[in-house]
Amino acid sequence: MNVLLVHAHPEPRSLSGSLKDLSVERLRRNGHEVMVSDLYAMRWKPAIDADDFLDHDSQAPLDVAAASGHAYATATQSADIAAEQEKLLRADAVILQFPMWWFSMPAILKGWVDRVYAYGLAYGVGEHSERRWGDRYGEGRFVGKRAMLVVTVGGWADHYSERGINGRMDDLLFPINHGILHYPGFTVLPPFIVYRTSKMDAARYRQTADELSARLDRLWTTAPIAYRLQNGGDYEIPSMRLKSGLSAGRSGLRIHTAED
Amino acid sequence: MNVLLVHAHPEPRSLSGSLKDLSVERLRRNGHEVMVSDLYAMRWKPAIDADDFLDHDSQAPLDVAAASGHAYATATQSADIAAEQEKLLRADAVILQFPMWWFSMPAILKGWVDRVYAYGLAYGVGEHSERRWGDRYGEGRFVGKRAMLVVTVGGWADHYSERGINGRMDDLLFPINHGILHYPGFTVLPPFIVYRTSKMDAARYRQTADELSARLDRLWTTAPIAYRLQNGGDYEIPSMRLKSGLSAGRSGLRIHTAED
Repeated sequence: MNVLLVHAHPEPRSLSGSLKDLSVERLRRNGHEVMVSDLYAMRWKPAIDADDFLDHDSQAPLDVAAASGHAYATATQSADIAAEQEKLLRADAVILQFPMWWFSMPAILKGWVDRVYAYGLAYGVGEHSERRWGDRYGEGRFVGKRAMLVVTVGGWADHYSERGINGRMDDLLFPINHGILHYPGFTVLPPFIVYRTSKMDAARYRQTADELSARLDRLWTTAPIAYRLQNGGDYEIPSMRLKSGLSAGRSGLRIHTAED
Repeated sequence: MNVLLVHAHPEPRSLSGSLKDLSVERLRRNGHEVMVSDLYAMRWKPAIDADDFLDHDSQAPLDVAAASGHAYATATQSADIAAEQEKLLRADAVILQFPMWWFSMPAILKGWVDRVYAYGLAYGVGEHSERRWGDRYGEGRFVGKRAMLVVTVGGWADHYSERGINGRMDDLLFPINHGILHYPGFTVLPPFIVYRTSKMDAARYRQTADELSARLDRLWTTAPIAYRLQNGGDYEIPSMRLKSGLSAGRSGLRIHTAED
């Protein structure tokens, strides 16, 4: 299998860098081909702009979605964007590995999503009408591929628990897991989270490394998050509201996962 | 009063650009001093890295929080970071205005947060012990300042409603409103959201402009989101779990706002 590991940390000698090296080695030992996009090492350009669209008339107003769609369809995208899209399309699984900064991903990784997720590739796919609102949330170009977040977090697990002050981790990651991964069709695995990164010692590192290795060994068999399908009958069309009766008695973002 | 408007859109002639111009004009007409950080126009550097810390030994591993704290305390930060911090400290209100891309802010704005929010300024403030976990979530350096998001969204409002497929808008914005604004002490106002941006015509634009103008006129009087205070008695210390009995019968991220 082919695995794409997208890594976003400025220091290779960090915990995040060590876990990236460990992952690459483990996956290769398991017989997989591993592609690594080490965004800081690549000096990845984070901000999408007119320079990304080679065919764009520099005097004309930039409509990002329209320019992205045209450039993707006519192969006039910036070469760095096209190269990442090729990796994505080749990959059977994608791992996004990053430190949580301000309850989300680092800017350089957000910029990978903003630029690589072109109109026609990750959105604007399928029929958009009163009957159907595109191929998304379980459908789309990345169907059949698995994806998993590996996140390092400075704070305590308690603070991210069900009633923890930072918000429940699954809710904080919903914009990424549901909005960035489920949306274009990935099968989304539960994230692997390492808390209290500044309190890491040798024993905890070994334990963390073992747990991550076990998750990588089960990359193809781990049960995914049961996010609902947009076009599977659970949502009204075109309002895209969850039908009444479903997730009865639940509220918050977890209504978008199927009941056990 | 002083208002800082941080704007993140690559095209000045966009809806987002128009709403920015309108805001600046309206606030000035109301007698306020307006500082604008137009991140694309400034060619803001999004990715935090060792170059941001002028005193950092290039051979030493980069610990981002430690380097940020040292650079902030010793005035050895990159000049662009220090300039934004000065604006933040002068501001009585901050407006973050951006298009929602992939259920979050554009990379260039996330990079403004990652870089400007230094250790010692926006986090790592106050006593951290078993008795107290810092001055945050309602305390911190930005206490007394107001903040508001102005967000343009391509999709339909229904899709972001209570049971909408994208997730409830307030939940999607929680990592920003609660995690980026409430955390360092801002008083957070309800966001101003414009949906279906591609379906904007002259009549809808006038209505949107009027509604935004009214929100700007009430910047100092609008009731804020009632996020709970970390150190106000609602959370257990040090687990920082919401005390049992509070938000009874509610679940999801809304438990972190006080009941009516």
